[in-house]
Amino acid sequence: MSTMGGLSQMKLAVNFLTIGLVILSLPCGSYTEIPPKPPGSVTVLPPVKPAGGPQAFPDAENSNLPVFTMDYARIQVPFEVTLWVLLASFAKIGFHVYHKITFWVPESCLLISIGLIVGAIMHSVHEEPPAVLSYNVFFLFMLPPIVLESGYFMPTRPFFENVGTVLWFAVVGTLWNSIGIGMSLYAVCQIEAFEVQDINLQENMLFAAIISAVDPVAVLSVFEDVSVNEQLYIVVFGECLFNDAVTVVLYNMFIFVADMPVVEPVDVFLGVARFFVVGLGGMGFGVIFGFVASFTTRFTSNVREIEPLFIFMYSYLAYLVAELFSISSIMAIVTCALTMKYYVEENVSQRSCTTIRHVVKMLGTISETLIFFFLGVVTITTEHEWNWGYIMFTLLLALVWRGLGVLVLTQIINPFRTIPFNFKDQFILGYGGLRGAISFALVFTLPDSIGRKKLFLTTTICMIMFTVFIQGISIRPLIEFINVRRTNRNLETINVEIHSRLIEHTIAGVEDLCGQWSHYYWKDNSKDDMEEVTSAANNRMSLVVYFLSFQHCI
Amino acid sequence: MSTMGGLSQMKLAVNFLTIGLVILSLPCGSYTEIPPKPPGSVTVLPPVKPAGGPQAFPDAENSNLPVFTMDYARIQVPFEVTLWVLLASFAKIGFHVYHKITFWVPESCLLISIGLIVGAIMHSVHEEPPAVLSYNVFFLFMLPPIVLESGYFMPTRPFFENVGTVLWFAVVGTLWNSIGIGMSLYAVCQIEAFEVQDINLQENMLFAAIISAVDPVAVLSVFEDVSVNEQLYIVVFGECLFNDAVTVVLYNMFIFVADMPVVEPVDVFLGVARFFVVGLGGMGFGVIFGFVASFTTRFTSNVREIEPLFIFMYSYLAYLVAELFSISSIMAIVTCALTMKYYVEENVSQRSCTTIRHVVKMLGTISETLIFFFLGVVTITTEHEWNWGYIMFTLLLALVWRGLGVLVLTQIINPFRTIPFNFKDQFILGYGGLRGAISFALVFTLPDSIGRKKLFLTTTICMIMFTVFIQGISIRPLIEFINVRRTNRNLETINVEIHSRLIEHTIAGVEDLCGQWSHYYWKDNSKDDMEEVTSAANNRMSLVVYFLSFQHCI
Repeated sequence: MSTMGGLSQMKLAVNFLTIGLVILSLPCGSYTEIPPKPPGSVTVLPPVKPAGGPQAFPDAENSNLPVFTMDYARIQVPFEVTLWVLLASFAKIGFHVYHKITFWVPESCLLISIGLIVGAIMHSVHEEPPAVLSYNVFFLFMLPPIVLESGYFMPTRPFFENVGTVLWFAVVGTLWNSIGIGMSLYAVCQIEAFEVQDINLQENMLFAAIISAVDPVAVLSVFEDVSVNEQLYIVVFGECLFNDAVTVVLYNMFIFVADMPVVEPVDVFLGVARFFVVGLGGMGFGVIFGFVASFTTRFTSNVREIEPLFIFMYSYLAYLVAELFSISSIMAIVTCALTMKYYVEENVSQRSCTTIRHVVKMLGTISETLIFFFLGVVTITTEHEWNWGYIMFTLLLALVWRGLGVLVLTQIINPFRTIPFNFKDQFILGYGGLRGAISFALVFTLPDSIGRKKLFLTTTICMIMFTVFIQGISIRPLIEFINVRRTNRNLETINVEIHSRLIEHTIAGVEDLCGQWSHYYWKDNSKDDMEEVTSAANNRMSLVVYFLSFQHCI
Repeated sequence: MSTMGGLSQMKLAVNFLTIGLVILSLPCGSYTEIPPKPPGSVTVLPPVKPAGGPQAFPDAENSNLPVFTMDYARIQVPFEVTLWVLLASFAKIGFHVYHKITFWVPESCLLISIGLIVGAIMHSVHEEPPAVLSYNVFFLFMLPPIVLESGYFMPTRPFFENVGTVLWFAVVGTLWNSIGIGMSLYAVCQIEAFEVQDINLQENMLFAAIISAVDPVAVLSVFEDVSVNEQLYIVVFGECLFNDAVTVVLYNMFIFVADMPVVEPVDVFLGVARFFVVGLGGMGFGVIFGFVASFTTRFTSNVREIEPLFIFMYSYLAYLVAELFSISSIMAIVTCALTMKYYVEENVSQRSCTTIRHVVKMLGTISETLIFFFLGVVTITTEHEWNWGYIMFTLLLALVWRGLGVLVLTQIINPFRTIPFNFKDQFILGYGGLRGAISFALVFTLPDSIGRKKLFLTTTICMIMFTVFIQGISIRPLIEFINVRRTNRNLETINVEIHSRLIEHTIAGVEDLCGQWSHYYWKDNSKDDMEEVTSAANNRMSLVVYFLSFQHCI
């Protein structure tokens, strides 16, 4: 609002850029109520005295009809949101004009850098940071598109082939990291020299949960470029998706716990119970809404123009209802997207299908872009609390626990896998644990009742910067250097594809006769999407295994 | 908020419907700030005492960790908006399941009827009407998609062929109606028996401007079904589009004037000046943003996923900037859409193009659906002021002035037209002047400082009901009965098409040599969109005329 005074003095051309950098003054809630008569609305031409535009209903004072009026406060919110989105989109265009940049430096790094520059400009003109990223705005408007995109575009076939490993890493891995990092950080806090003894165990656990959310968008795009093997790809993809759910659950739980003076043993049990209620409840809602959406699209053949709307509305409704009951809204929207995807795409028209995919992708991309962009801006404009000990130990502990976790968890899961992870895979799994948008948003929207919020914010930003810049940039050369197992897309794909599918169907049939449902059942029931990551090489490798198990079966 | 108490007692299944009918309690501005701790958030399972969910940061009171919480206030706004949209979409599905209904009864009638039923239910459970349709929500969020849709899907070729007539009817016709109805209503107000002497001239003019906005969606769909001649179609289409702009200008002007104690002569001149500033300024902004958008899409070939976003952002920005300067935002967004359409559709990928078209259509449709739906709800739930004299005279005068206007304006424009309107066309033009969403939204969002706002609202609703139900339902039989000139789509289309285009191009070339620019120039420069309304029959009819003028030229 403080910009109103200056606005009339500036030239129009300057306005556009400046307004873009101006405070997005959306206070705590979400959209603010716009005052009906803005304080500084400016009337130009005939009367020089400021008389509110036609929209701002004027006082009884006898002024002439204005030929030209200006009223900024009225359009401020949508205008500035639009400008931020445009700015972020321009950044994306800019990177891709010089394609070489994005080949070596992940897009998230570039976005953060642009954000840093914009932040520096804002800081130099003493503007406040954009307050748009409040708890509600993030959880109700920015997170859903990101998660919907991941859920909707998840390659179903490889996912169900690796569902056990994915959930293992997502759930147990995240718990491992949160608890491990939280406990060790609490131990570190006891060292007097660091002057962080006031951070209690609950707050350390909360913070550990926040920085346990991995967000390997950058890693995934590298994986796609160098066509790394699907097992690795889907595990990183799935881990990222479901570990968001786990992190948010932990986050909500620890935020509650952080304010409790005493944590009784019963609370631990309630926490575990809540964990299951939240996760399975979210899944349940997702499935219900997914089926309702699939069912609805059977009747939309005469209203093709609003068909895509149903997909967005139902997914969003699943998310909101889950939020209402404080169960995992991420699980709900992901499950909803997974459930309805194939039914919906069969029911709707080709154009609607294209629109749905494109819009889901678009909203997700822009949401994520905005968050990285804000990350850069906030890094400069917000107040920091720097504490060498705490920050360095966090970086170290996060690396150590992630590495340990991957080693231990892989040892446990490997015997159950058809294609076990080798040491190189493990290394990339551990090294690919970048932190990103979710961590930042979670820490940024922490309640002010957390005493060391500033320190947590600073540490999280350091953590993100470190992982995104150092690990993100080095992972491509590293993958090529250690020569991680690739997919080999050039072999006799169609032939192999046909045979392996035939065998899979047969196995599913045999299992059905035996009364046994393994993952072949789910693969058999999930339609193949040839565009997706699922490639022939995967089948080629499993072919021998399938054949052996087939023989064994008979 | 009053629903919170009941919510916990009701069953979940009942909730969904009830919440849909509940107050959309968005006060005056737009989105409201959501209180961080809702008054009635309910915690179920372990502790029976209400302790806010994890999101609502609890007091220091020692409560156990809740396994299951509920927090409605937080998600209220997006949740209820989503439900309203879903409800409206369901209504649309419902109509089309029985296609026969929508053949005889326009969709707007059905939507209003459903709205009436929902309103009656809400009234019976003593719910307040949805306050979602505030001035800002309507003008910043609901109107842009509707106008963007019309502008984007305007058939360019017929439009430029009839641009003179369209603007003539839109601008002069709307002024004629507004001034005529306003003056005569003021005269009616002087009759003591009606007890409306307190309505002054300015308020009458304001009201007349509101009910001069025609919205012939229903008529257009009938026109398409019976394939009426293009001249009639495009004039009704264009009139509706540009007369919105004129109406909104008049509305803003009269709202300002309505509060002026004395209207000096200079104000009239300023009003006229403002009229031109507003109209041409809007056009200017539209063209600028349109070209910037076209230019931007030249660089998006690497970021296909966010391409459609630019179209929406730029159109919206054109709209908002126009709103900022209080110039015609409708003109701005329509001109922007017209300017960028062909460039953009050449630049973007096929998928992006489909997405843009689909989303523009979708948003426009749902916005309009919602407004008609709310019209029904508000009719029941709002307070009315009934005044036989004023209402009946408004209906009568609107009909009379519309009829007179069409007759007089057609007589003036006919000599300049290649294909003059005959009497049947004129009748349908006059009879097709349905009132709709814009009128309702304008009157509903009138400031409370207008003394007889309730009477105006009641009269406008009567006017809309009368025109939409009586005229809307009867226009199809009427067109068939009086046998209005149709297009004849079955003649040798391709052959005729090729020849007439050839001749047109030649004429454009000859004119260029003569240094003369007529509408052939614009037709020649505007790319043809074969999907659009432009049909061969149009060319067939003009063929002889073109040929003659061609001979004449040589």
